[in-house]
Amino acid sequence: MLALYTYWRSSAAYRVRIALNLKGLAYEPRPIHLVNDGGEHLKPAYRDISPQAQLPTLVDGDVVVRQSMAILEYLEETRPTPALLPADVQGRARVRELALAVGTDIHPLGNLRVLKELEASYGADAAAKAAWCRRWIGNGFNGIEALLERGPQGHFCYGDSPTMADCCLVPQYYNAVRWELDLAPYPNIRRVVEACQALEAFQKAAPEAQPDAP
Amino acid sequence: MLALYTYWRSSAAYRVRIALNLKGLAYEPRPIHLVNDGGEHLKPAYRDISPQAQLPTLVDGDVVVRQSMAILEYLEETRPTPALLPADVQGRARVRELALAVGTDIHPLGNLRVLKELEASYGADAAAKAAWCRRWIGNGFNGIEALLERGPQGHFCYGDSPTMADCCLVPQYYNAVRWELDLAPYPNIRRVVEACQALEAFQKAAPEAQPDAP
Repeated sequence: MLALYTYWRSSAAYRVRIALNLKGLAYEPRPIHLVNDGGEHLKPAYRDISPQAQLPTLVDGDVVVRQSMAILEYLEETRPTPALLPADVQGRARVRELALAVGTDIHPLGNLRVLKELEASYGADAAAKAAWCRRWIGNGFNGIEALLERGPQGHFCYGDSPTMADCCLVPQYYNAVRWELDLAPYPNIRRVVEACQALEAFQKAAPEAQPDAP
Repeated sequence: MLALYTYWRSSAAYRVRIALNLKGLAYEPRPIHLVNDGGEHLKPAYRDISPQAQLPTLVDGDVVVRQSMAILEYLEETRPTPALLPADVQGRARVRELALAVGTDIHPLGNLRVLKELEASYGADAAAKAAWCRRWIGNGFNGIEALLERGPQGHFCYGDSPTMADCCLVPQYYNAVRWELDLAPYPNIRRVVEACQALEAFQKAAPEAQPDAP
């Protein structure tokens, strides 16, 4: 059986949980607490699995895959149905560019380790950290909203079934709400997220639905 | 013919230039200056192409692909030879996890817009910005070095021919040198980068070899 090193509020782990659920794949969650005990991800036991001390990590028998976007591609290659990438090359590129807009241009800047460093080196307080997160999420959402508006439009980020792009957008939206970003300027993003949230695969992957949620 | 919106010192554009060269693909460079004139990427003309105002963007006839990692996948799907991903699924996952370790955990944190924000909101001077960059590159290189050490080892990041992982690692190494990171702790990274730099495809993609370099 698949196993996933995860943390309930990790945005990157949330992406993979959605993909596993969409593909109907059972998995054993292995919670790694990012805060308790100085951060379980920083202990030697987990560093042996992930030298970068990052979540999530997927274990599939002998195969260990780190990096959420690499895990999504791995699942697509090994468990292709239902597909989380369109069949045509242009659609695949569009889905990946939307997914990576979240994965590279937004999410890394709001990571816990970055916020900790802003506090340690620059004295950023809670309000300053929230403003930092809103800045980069807003910047990224501006771009994604423009791309969604331009189309091709569908119920989801691309077409009428969920893709990797939705797996990435929904956890980022969760963070946007958490940091109190004004979401009024993003009607297409809100429409897509609403369509996703109606699906059990997304509901079961939500932070609050995880066994390690407080 | 392919066209690439690029900037000589953009690390993400540098990745794509390497991939295009490795695949022997001619392309028209379309330089977008990130500093001159307040940043050409922020003007409406380029925002119409890239709503996120990010480089690079690939144009292939009617197809426009943004996000360097999506472009690498697109090139692999449309111009599969020579391959920049291994044939086996486990190898592909390894290459993607190494590439994404650079693309998500290191590079976004040292982006020009992030450094500008550190200066604007926190008064970070040149030394503080360099320390910030060294911190995240060092952190990411620690993880990549451990993965390379563990193997499977080859001349390059994975095996004996260059992959997407090398396309990402070399530009990040260039930035590490620029920010004066001590590279002594990274013998595997140095070995791989040296092997890459011996190849014309990497040499021709280097920032200083670009038509828009000063």
